[in-house]
Amino acid sequence: MERAWLCNRIFKSDRSQNKIISMKKAVILLSGGLDSATILAIAKNEGYECHCISFQYGQRHSIELEKSEELTRKYRCTHKVFDIPPIAGSALTNSNIDIQKTGVSIGIPATYVPARNTIFLSFALSYAESIGAHDIFIGVNAVDYSGYPDCRPEYIEAFQNMANLATKAGVEGKHTKIHTPLIDLTKAEIIKLGIANQVDYSLTSSCYDPDIFGNACGTCDSCRLRLKGFAEAGIKDPIEYQ
Amino acid sequence: MERAWLCNRIFKSDRSQNKIISMKKAVILLSGGLDSATILAIAKNEGYECHCISFQYGQRHSIELEKSEELTRKYRCTHKVFDIPPIAGSALTNSNIDIQKTGVSIGIPATYVPARNTIFLSFALSYAESIGAHDIFIGVNAVDYSGYPDCRPEYIEAFQNMANLATKAGVEGKHTKIHTPLIDLTKAEIIKLGIANQVDYSLTSSCYDPDIFGNACGTCDSCRLRLKGFAEAGIKDPIEYQ
Repeated sequence: MERAWLCNRIFKSDRSQNKIISMKKAVILLSGGLDSATILAIAKNEGYECHCISFQYGQRHSIELEKSEELTRKYRCTHKVFDIPPIAGSALTNSNIDIQKTGVSIGIPATYVPARNTIFLSFALSYAESIGAHDIFIGVNAVDYSGYPDCRPEYIEAFQNMANLATKAGVEGKHTKIHTPLIDLTKAEIIKLGIANQVDYSLTSSCYDPDIFGNACGTCDSCRLRLKGFAEAGIKDPIEYQ
Repeated sequence: MERAWLCNRIFKSDRSQNKIISMKKAVILLSGGLDSATILAIAKNEGYECHCISFQYGQRHSIELEKSEELTRKYRCTHKVFDIPPIAGSALTNSNIDIQKTGVSIGIPATYVPARNTIFLSFALSYAESIGAHDIFIGVNAVDYSGYPDCRPEYIEAFQNMANLATKAGVEGKHTKIHTPLIDLTKAEIIKLGIANQVDYSLTSSCYDPDIFGNACGTCDSCRLRLKGFAEAGIKDPIEYQ
């Protein structure tokens, strides 16, 4: 029993203090974008043993997964890709719906994917319970964001409340925390925080509609928010644009 | 615009009253078991246009999906099977974990699947939003049940609260209701309610460990609860046991 418990933890020798530190596990939702790369760096710097998860959900392009893979290699994390059925009803998963390119939308845009974060967080919750993690990091942001309802603090709070009623771990008092370190920050503040955490933003992609070489369009909502963020932060965006 | 709206509804001529009735859409979580067959019959009898969904999630046997298919054929519903990645950490998805057969477990049993209902309801929520449904039926039961945390009323209430913050429909005031008509009933009461709703229980399977012919074991938690329910209802269970 004790052996199983021991096997369920990772111990790391901290030579400078000559003592054993137990690393807490965290599940990181990674999309290969600017925000999720930043939360991965934050979680690593907070000392978590990071287990990253990404989703193949019928996106129009595969760059999210390629960038996620690069980031997890750089940060030496585990990376699990959940291949889930296409989520219907969004411009991100249906090439018949146009992606808006004339400026950041007012209201909820066509790129909204029905219940996407709920599906992603549900898999994160299940995966966390199966590996004995009680911390989940997600890079949602409710300031410079695209107007998605499932990026708001009240949504995250409601998910966390539900999560702790849903699981065996929750019933046993081992509560799961949904960490949203970016939720109150502007895009410029996120970028500055990322730079302070040594994020290499050249390994990220935010574009909804990149070309076949993976170069960002520069005109979709997500590119506009990213470019505005870098401009306001006074930092050059290191990725290539078409 | 109006045409699109019209196309999104189903109209049925009610000849007896010589008027047009608009049928509301409902998403039904169907596992092919006794409980979900009962909620499908209830939803049909309440006049919903039923859209059933089932999940392939790495179960040890395929009988759930076969029975679900039979039920949807009988009730002339649409049926969508979501093929999702195996959910780890349960005797139902891992043949190395034994299924308990010595009596109904105390506490949360090995057949608990981490966050299963949260994942299922998340897909139901996404699917409902994509087809314009605001009603989801799930056959959870908190009386004669296996002790799963995600079958309790407080969990369902928390999920519904989260769901209405998660979606575009929720933000626009079109609230989603999670219907749990069986939640307060004993298994015997569920069976009586099902019989009153003309459920053909020979089309259902509840067993966690059926043989290769699909015959129920009669000794797992789920079989024991089913057999006890039929006995208490004074009705013969029409399925075959090994």
